[in-house]
Amino acid sequence: MNNVFPHESTDCANLPKTIALIGKYHSQDIAESIRMLARYLHERGMTVLIEEETARNVVSQLDLRSWASGSFAWLGAHADMAIVAGGDGTMLNAARQLARYRVPLVGVNQGRLGFMTDISRNDMLAAMDDLLDGKFVPETRMLLEAEVLRDERPVGAPHLALNDVVVDKGAIGRMIEFELFVDSEFIYHLRADGLIVATSTGSTAYALSANGPILHPQVSAIALVPLCPHALTNRPILVGDRNEIEIRIVHGTDSRVHFDGQVTVDLTNGDCVRIRRSEYSICLLHPPGHSYFAMLRQKLHWSERPKEH
Amino acid sequence: MNNVFPHESTDCANLPKTIALIGKYHSQDIAESIRMLARYLHERGMTVLIEEETARNVVSQLDLRSWASGSFAWLGAHADMAIVAGGDGTMLNAARQLARYRVPLVGVNQGRLGFMTDISRNDMLAAMDDLLDGKFVPETRMLLEAEVLRDERPVGAPHLALNDVVVDKGAIGRMIEFELFVDSEFIYHLRADGLIVATSTGSTAYALSANGPILHPQVSAIALVPLCPHALTNRPILVGDRNEIEIRIVHGTDSRVHFDGQVTVDLTNGDCVRIRRSEYSICLLHPPGHSYFAMLRQKLHWSERPKEH
Amino acid sequence: MNNVFPHESTDCANLPKTIALIGKYHSQDIAESIRMLARYLHERGMTVLIEEETARNVVSQLDLRSWASGSFAWLGAHADMAIVAGGDGTMLNAARQLARYRVPLVGVNQGRLGFMTDISRNDMLAAMDDLLDGKFVPETRMLLEAEVLRDERPVGAPHLALNDVVVDKGAIGRMIEFELFVDSEFIYHLRADGLIVATSTGSTAYALSANGPILHPQVSAIALVPLCPHALTNRPILVGDRNEIEIRIVHGTDSRVHFDGQVTVDLTNGDCVRIRRSEYSICLLHPPGHSYFAMLRQKLHWSERPKEH
Amino acid sequence: MNNVFPHESTDCANLPKTIALIGKYHSQDIAESIRMLARYLHERGMTVLIEEETARNVVSQLDLRSWASGSFAWLGAHADMAIVAGGDGTMLNAARQLARYRVPLVGVNQGRLGFMTDISRNDMLAAMDDLLDGKFVPETRMLLEAEVLRDERPVGAPHLALNDVVVDKGAIGRMIEFELFVDSEFIYHLRADGLIVATSTGSTAYALSANGPILHPQVSAIALVPLCPHALTNRPILVGDRNEIEIRIVHGTDSRVHFDGQVTVDLTNGDCVRIRRSEYSICLLHPPGHSYFAMLRQKLHWSERPKEH
Repeated sequence: MNNVFPHESTDCANLPKTIALIGKYHSQDIAESIRMLARYLHERGMTVLIEEETARNVVSQLDLRSWASGSFAWLGAHADMAIVAGGDGTMLNAARQLARYRVPLVGVNQGRLGFMTDISRNDMLAAMDDLLDGKFVPETRMLLEAEVLRDERPVGAPHLALNDVVVDKGAIGRMIEFELFVDSEFIYHLRADGLIVATSTGSTAYALSANGPILHPQVSAIALVPLCPHALTNRPILVGDRNEIEIRIVHGTDSRVHFDGQVTVDLTNGDCVRIRRSEYSICLLHPPGHSYFAMLRQKLHWSERPKEH
Repeated sequence: MNNVFPHESTDCANLPKTIALIGKYHSQDIAESIRMLARYLHERGMTVLIEEETARNVVSQLDLRSWASGSFAWLGAHADMAIVAGGDGTMLNAARQLARYRVPLVGVNQGRLGFMTDISRNDMLAAMDDLLDGKFVPETRMLLEAEVLRDERPVGAPHLALNDVVVDKGAIGRMIEFELFVDSEFIYHLRADGLIVATSTGSTAYALSANGPILHPQVSAIALVPLCPHALTNRPILVGDRNEIEIRIVHGTDSRVHFDGQVTVDLTNGDCVRIRRSEYSICLLHPPGHSYFAMLRQKLHWSERPKEH
Repeated sequence: MNNVFPHESTDCANLPKTIALIGKYHSQDIAESIRMLARYLHERGMTVLIEEETARNVVSQLDLRSWASGSFAWLGAHADMAIVAGGDGTMLNAARQLARYRVPLVGVNQGRLGFMTDISRNDMLAAMDDLLDGKFVPETRMLLEAEVLRDERPVGAPHLALNDVVVDKGAIGRMIEFELFVDSEFIYHLRADGLIVATSTGSTAYALSANGPILHPQVSAIALVPLCPHALTNRPILVGDRNEIEIRIVHGTDSRVHFDGQVTVDLTNGDCVRIRRSEYSICLLHPPGHSYFAMLRQKLHWSERPKEH
Repeated sequence: MNNVFPHESTDCANLPKTIALIGKYHSQDIAESIRMLARYLHERGMTVLIEEETARNVVSQLDLRSWASGSFAWLGAHADMAIVAGGDGTMLNAARQLARYRVPLVGVNQGRLGFMTDISRNDMLAAMDDLLDGKFVPETRMLLEAEVLRDERPVGAPHLALNDVVVDKGAIGRMIEFELFVDSEFIYHLRADGLIVATSTGSTAYALSANGPILHPQVSAIALVPLCPHALTNRPILVGDRNEIEIRIVHGTDSRVHFDGQVTVDLTNGDCVRIRRSEYSICLLHPPGHSYFAMLRQKLHWSERPKEH
């Protein structure tokens, strides 16, 4: 058990026996990677499960039919680990789908490495060896859970987000007006394009484009980053990961809330989006030698190495 | 003639005889102001014209029926000057509507002074005296003209903008991808929420919220301010007011272009928005003693006065 | 005992009997406040101690001679609480001086309220009543401890900082070049005007001017905010409060390190500034009803209150 | 004659006969380049003059003794053109030294191309052929002229700057307090680390690190970019290139003014730095096909090319 956080119980430590494969849809490159991974893991004695949409993408590859495929819920119930082939977007979706099943995730990237998909296709099979030998480095990432309240009552089920919950204006392009509360205390009233509520994982995604700070994954905080605030003194704020955040729409008949930029719910005046840290966390498994800052340096084109002393 | 700019021929100098009144719609406060202005100007011997939508708003005030009302085009053909009662939004609309008729504009504000509506309701009638005495300070502001091209052909008529032309993402909330050209030269390819193309007038509006610089109205430049650029090295760029700017949508089936945040046109992949300085300019008439920087200090809450030396 | 942090043992809870008074030097207004406080607290049965430099400032007030005065160390050994009259600068100095003695601090401000000096002079005596009745709200703030290493050996004693440790260029005005390490891991090599290492308390001070985020005091993080970085992709980073930060000067014969902007040490090429969270914390005592965000709203001129719902 | 600006009389058009060579001091690589250039230009029939400090750097190369060397003033009086080998820093110095003599400048870079030194060493000799054939593209860049006033009287001679005039704090590290005037009108009172007054050329230098906008060289404006302003609503301002800017030090016994970051003058309370566009401009000669934006793309690592349409 890797109890970094009090409500954390993701089991990152045991050696895997059943491995789920999840790939970006509609990509032939990914289909090829999934096939290679499936074969290799099977040869290594693993039980291989394929996510059903992923399986559909690789259906013409006859040999894939030999492996079982099913929904995320089914994968969650049976897999010890999931390997995600694609970019950070594919990983975000898999993370939200599998969080409640506490399945650790490994990210394989086809092109440029992502912030979370940190194994390149070329190193993929060698990385599998390390993985099966238990040489991977687990890292826990918090998720946010958000619900939309209308007339004090929840609209639909709560949503998870690994990167961010974003409340913003819609297609008309007019600023929205909202109020921010933290633990029920009024913080500010703002006219802006919107507000990003980001985890440390999300701090290097959309929030970074909006001038938010970078949060090391170990920092237990939630970033509140305004989008084009009308008030020039409004700045990104960091609150604790135990705080409950509420955004109340004062004017915004065309406003929305986005979860990881992948799921959207329409909002209207008076609606409230209530956000807190989820009881679930994600366990990312990194290759040996993984360094958060090395990844950051590479992605942000910072200077590559220290001077010789 | 006040030929600050080569293609400028707004006549700001002659004393007015016919005055148009334009007010924010659906506001009873504004209706009252319009009525006061109409009576006062009539007493001072002016011919008073009321914009037709404005007139509808004040129609229950019987005495207003005595004045002529008509469209912006009709006002443009007959008025020597227009008085705009409302906020900067009302002024933006009036400016675009009247620009081609070269009617100078005076702004009266009900609440807090705006960047362009710089006469408070309390000072309104005294300001009219100054105005009729020719004591006002003319200031010329450029406009942008933009057209949308699809398959190299214009979609609809060109649009004017006094503040800004904004290309941005729509309701789905996904970044758009576009290319920027200046005078047909490729500048950059960017994934972002959008791009603001702002005049100096617009530099204190939306562009300021997006971290753009403030341009003094005398600076002959156009500001290109990215919205949440995915590339962290992308910064606001100032180009000359003779440059032609083109934004080509590479990916953005849900993208739009907004003119002064008041008129919107849907865009799709391959569309091009072509922007240049309009041949028309607006002449704003300011009260004697008007100072751009004093207005800025007040609006942005800068320190109010120099130290005694 | 108020053990928010593991190594925290500031006793904020017991009712005070001996109270230290500390005031901004060379201010007659402050001298008057100190005199009023001294009399009032004496009448309420407290033992009153005056910081020796503060006492010198009020020495012409004969009646002050009746109270004992001494060094910060002496105050630290005997006082149950210290009242600081002045601005945030006076508070920063008192906090660093008294941190190791675990004396809780109360801030009284003469002019505009500060971020930490949150009792106005007008409310001063009433606030003393609340204080003596134990009605104050304790809040713990971390400090940083920093040492300068030259040829691997410490130069002088370690320094404390409540706001920030700032490494920057000196008078020549040339950028410095340095390397940043976190827990001995290389993070980046940067040419810049400098780097601010700020606590949450310091996040609303210098770091905010340099585009750093605002950290709620409960967030256990340290902000690394670059000053005019030559690399445009360099952004503020938040690391954990258990991390050790090292800044190594690569080129900067004219560089310096400042502690709370009040104490300065010259640096040269090869010097290393090593920063970690101090084992000491400060306990600030706030009046009943104190709210961090209300203070922030007021200082940053955010909108004052929520809309009526 | 290339009269882009009214007071512009740099002669960029005539074919050169006498060429000055200027190189970064104390660099053996540069010495080698200078030698190659001198020989090549001599073979092509040019009269070659070497700047005297540059000559000292290459004195051990015997063959260089054959060429005449002298001061910048002497070069200014005799040369038709100057070739500057080094980085942008070497170019800044040469530009300030030669501006009053209206000698066009060509920049050769040893390492990475600079913003102004846009010919690589590898292409150096071929570029000379283009140059002597008159194939170069002239571009005019404005300079700033600044004088320091103490008790209303100038302190020393005026200074020129091609990039920027920077007023900032000194070694103590305390904010300075100053007032800004434009054409004698009070603009604001600010506490900050300082203020950058930048030309379009300087907009991609220090001002860019301080969040200033990028000004295309054709934009006739001066950028006023604050350094860590204490007031969060203070933003970069663009004023016209005909405006006179004054910065009055209110509190700053340790403040300074820097010209292109290469020349520094100490300031004290009450001092005034008066800045205006210089009557001199610099003519940069660029290789055929030169593009400002292409250079920007390369230096700022923007996306390299448009999508195929």
